[in-house]
Amino acid sequence: MSIRLPRGTQDILPGQVEKWQLIEQKARELCHKFQYQEIRTPIFEHTDLFLRSVGDTTDIVQKEMYTFDDRGGRSLTLRPEGTASTVRSFVEHKMFGQANQPVKLYYMGPMFRYERPQAGRFRQFVQFGVEAIGSDDPAIDAEVIALAMALYKEMGLKKLKLVINSLGDKESRAKHREALIAHFSPSINEFCSDCQSRLEKNPMRILDCKKDREHPLMKTAPSIIDHLNDESKQYFKKVQQYLTDLEIEFEVDANLVRGLDYYTHTAFEIMSDAEGFGAITTLCGGGRYNGLTEEVGGPEAPGIGFALSIERFLAALEAENVELPIDQSIDCYIVALGEEARDYSVGLLHKLRHAGYSAERDYSDRKIKAQFKAADRMNAKYVAVIGEDELKNNKINLKIMDSGEQKEMELASFIQDFTALYRN
Amino acid sequence: MSIRLPRGTQDILPGQVEKWQLIEQKARELCHKFQYQEIRTPIFEHTDLFLRSVGDTTDIVQKEMYTFDDRGGRSLTLRPEGTASTVRSFVEHKMFGQANQPVKLYYMGPMFRYERPQAGRFRQFVQFGVEAIGSDDPAIDAEVIALAMALYKEMGLKKLKLVINSLGDKESRAKHREALIAHFSPSINEFCSDCQSRLEKNPMRILDCKKDREHPLMKTAPSIIDHLNDESKQYFKKVQQYLTDLEIEFEVDANLVRGLDYYTHTAFEIMSDAEGFGAITTLCGGGRYNGLTEEVGGPEAPGIGFALSIERFLAALEAENVELPIDQSIDCYIVALGEEARDYSVGLLHKLRHAGYSAERDYSDRKIKAQFKAADRMNAKYVAVIGEDELKNNKINLKIMDSGEQKEMELASFIQDFTALYRN
Repeated sequence: MSIRLPRGTQDILPGQVEKWQLIEQKARELCHKFQYQEIRTPIFEHTDLFLRSVGDTTDIVQKEMYTFDDRGGRSLTLRPEGTASTVRSFVEHKMFGQANQPVKLYYMGPMFRYERPQAGRFRQFVQFGVEAIGSDDPAIDAEVIALAMALYKEMGLKKLKLVINSLGDKESRAKHREALIAHFSPSINEFCSDCQSRLEKNPMRILDCKKDREHPLMKTAPSIIDHLNDESKQYFKKVQQYLTDLEIEFEVDANLVRGLDYYTHTAFEIMSDAEGFGAITTLCGGGRYNGLTEEVGGPEAPGIGFALSIERFLAALEAENVELPIDQSIDCYIVALGEEARDYSVGLLHKLRHAGYSAERDYSDRKIKAQFKAADRMNAKYVAVIGEDELKNNKINLKIMDSGEQKEMELASFIQDFTALYRN
Repeated sequence: MSIRLPRGTQDILPGQVEKWQLIEQKARELCHKFQYQEIRTPIFEHTDLFLRSVGDTTDIVQKEMYTFDDRGGRSLTLRPEGTASTVRSFVEHKMFGQANQPVKLYYMGPMFRYERPQAGRFRQFVQFGVEAIGSDDPAIDAEVIALAMALYKEMGLKKLKLVINSLGDKESRAKHREALIAHFSPSINEFCSDCQSRLEKNPMRILDCKKDREHPLMKTAPSIIDHLNDESKQYFKKVQQYLTDLEIEFEVDANLVRGLDYYTHTAFEIMSDAEGFGAITTLCGGGRYNGLTEEVGGPEAPGIGFALSIERFLAALEAENVELPIDQSIDCYIVALGEEARDYSVGLLHKLRHAGYSAERDYSDRKIKAQFKAADRMNAKYVAVIGEDELKNNKINLKIMDSGEQKEMELASFIQDFTALYRN
């Protein structure tokens, strides 16, 4: 019996992987322009990190983590998201002491959540995210949003919607919390059991509940916007002003709350408006987390970041029918006929590659027609033919596939002659 | 208390991560020239895959795997190496049916082995590897070796040693196995308990034992080379001929056996000869595995590949004092003074980045001197200064850091003027 992929995971194969490479390359280029540098943290962390940072009232921690003991008895968890690890690393390596603040980091890699597999949702998925830690300048909030928007736009997405909100500072959140408890508690029995337990622990998350979405009290719930203190209002206003300066369109949605416990001030989501994109419209989520470094044992350092899934990015590109510029051609295919010519072609192939060209030959001792077919399938720009006659006369027959034109070249100077032709 | 990295893992931080990026980029370029395409398999697989492919007599399977049950009760294992997953994917997606054979794949990513942490050894480490599956043309063996050598050389390593051997086909291995059992069994009690259990299961692995390395019977053990049948000899000769054609130096070492069970014919290792590189000298190991697709439930398809650790690659570069070409500069740093100019700089920064430049500004409201210091630390090529006076007069003062020269530019045409200057 054959062994198959674990449920909820996927292989990314040639033909698809080029799209991932393209998005990643574009993300790296943008991060360089915006001066975010890459950080690579381990695939697993001490379980405690996620309990403290993501928060133990969240679905992620309660239902979705891959947690296991290693051979030394440590409880480890495959990372369900990237912010906790990045902040852990910021604290552990004392980056708060670096001269340039904020420290601007990006990450790219697999994350793991044990969810029910469904279309577009995987148990292993890839996130690209950035974190700017060590500044509460609202210009950083705008910059982080601008980076995500630039990535989507430069890859060709047009139907984007940016929604922002403010969750306020600690004081504002505390007032809002009181108002929410007062609002929901008389009728809390009409809500699901999750919401009932959220009421005291984290009532803001009731607003995020999928089951109770239609309850009339949801529409009349007190808005965080109405509970922002002056400082929080001022901060939010400045973020909006900068977004306007950057010519980035946005909507304020007072109902936008985020599933993770550690957010303060700015929260945002970028959604796809594309038809046929289906129910999952959120492409990217992010926000400010001014208390997170302390949660994981470090000094205070205000941070902001976002994370986006490459899987959903690709789905949005597909929904908008964006054609990605992927080059699937090769420079030269060598057709070799007869054992001597086949042997000779091994060295020639190597020389072509060494000179910088993508090149290939046949490995199955096929006939000339089949070798030409292989060259076609690989979209070869040139085909170099060597048979017994050519080898005897120290010649190569080069076919320019675009025009069908053929040229006879000397074996001895083939790489130079090919280069001259190629560069023209 | 702060939460720390799991034991045996590392964070790869800015300042180091650029080296990883460079090696990966070079590996991708080479794979394109050699026509290997990327495959990405999940971080974990069904445990059974590694039991069947890596082999249950190996240290990896017996002592080093991260194995756990998921919430659905499946036994999963964090991949300890990349070949098994690649071959699993080859079989599952029926790549043996593709018109172009062999299917040439590469992978790059983290692998996991629960080993005793020591210098240069991590429980999570990164491997780059290639697999060519579907051809037993010895030219592929030479190509795979050539790719690994090209990567090391193009990154600047000089002190390399390539060692090859043949483990023969099934018939040759069976004969060698009998000879080994006859050789070791009279004195097997003088060997370690691991070797005693290897004697019947996999006697070739006795030759690989670190504990019994000095036993006199090791030196006189029958060599696989002496047990190769004609076909295997012929195959090995051809591989050597091609390596010579490709001007790749090598040594034949009849004692080179590989720790994994699935190798046949060509086996190779690339080692570093650099002084001070210490005991760990093997950089890359690979070989041919003609029975592996069948082990994981597919049809016969001969394969060959290698895997190399990026961690050891970096250690070898360090041992040879290779300076990597890493550009740590930025194009433009904006020094802004006063609230109005600071606000203005947010939009200007965005325009510079949008025009393709890497650019940064101050986020901590620092004085002019501190901002210039920050620009220095970031190796800014240009510094654009905007204060209240400049803003009032619609001017920017641009300092060319190389020469110390200053230029006054119009705010309105700054991006164009900067571009004109930059391109000169």
